[in-house]
Amino acid sequence: MDISTVNALSYEDFVNVFGNVVEKCPVVSAAVWSMRPFKNLAALEAAISEFIDALPETGKEGILRCHPDLAGRELQSGTLTRESREEQARAGLDALSSAEASRVSLLNEAYKTRFGFPFVICARTNDKETILQQLTERSRNQAAAERARGIDEVKRICHVRLQSLVLAEPPNKL
Amino acid sequence: MDISTVNALSYEDFVNVFGNVVEKCPVVSAAVWSMRPFKNLAALEAAISEFIDALPETGKEGILRCHPDLAGRELQSGTLTRESREEQARAGLDALSSAEASRVSLLNEAYKTRFGFPFVICARTNDKETILQQLTERSRNQAAAERARGIDEVKRICHVRLQSLVLAEPPNKL
Repeated sequence: MDISTVNALSYEDFVNVFGNVVEKCPVVSAAVWSMRPFKNLAALEAAISEFIDALPETGKEGILRCHPDLAGRELQSGTLTRESREEQARAGLDALSSAEASRVSLLNEAYKTRFGFPFVICARTNDKETILQQLTERSRNQAAAERARGIDEVKRICHVRLQSLVLAEPPNKL
Repeated sequence: MDISTVNALSYEDFVNVFGNVVEKCPVVSAAVWSMRPFKNLAALEAAISEFIDALPETGKEGILRCHPDLAGRELQSGTLTRESREEQARAGLDALSSAEASRVSLLNEAYKTRFGFPFVICARTNDKETILQQLTERSRNQAAAERARGIDEVKRICHVRLQSLVLAEPPNKL
């Protein structure tokens, strides 16, 4: 899919393609459709990033709260979005030992109790060990720093998903 | 469900209950969870309204673009959200004559081409005749006025959905 194809999409098709680059927040891609034409894929990614940055802090927390727990109930019950399922599986989070699963569950709950949003990390660019280590370490952060860190991870996830969507459809001229 | 019950919900339960009061925008309820405790249901509704008002114009357009066409493809194919399906059915939009259906389809397409977002109206508080009349009349509006009008309708839909969620679960003390 080249950028001229992207720029020619109706808002309905655009949201169908890019609606989950920010997990369960189709309103983000629906909003940035207003900013087309995009010069290239990086410009689309920048528009998404700027839209997120312009949200009030509550809105950023809202985005984080639309994310599933890592190795959580939705992974077990098969109700993750396709993108999250693939990302968690690639990182090995669908094959935790029973001891690891218990530990992640306890850490997830403690994190959510402390911050009021879930631990978000780009699973594609981290392996299981790093994710578990980060979950432990980041639990000790201050709330504002951790909210900012979570949003950085949302943007990393968005980058990976955008690349994946575009590379999936040759010719890739983006 | 009384307001103390609402205020005691985890963000996950809160989004499960209220996630679609703004169509396909769970991020809105996920965001206003930060503002609890709410004094009453009206305070929750006001928080949602203020969150929407604080969005940039692109964000408001994004919310409108998350809405389905009235009497459109998603109604035909059964892929509407439960709330939208019930609202469109109550207004009689699932039982249009073939002539009415053709007219609505043409008007919807013309509206979307002109404004870049779909025609949004609170179907619960309008009947079929009024909806068709409004679709024709509002198509002639200026874009900024029509965007504002669409957002007003989003808030009316939100009001009806909030009432419905709360009344569905006695005792209603909200």
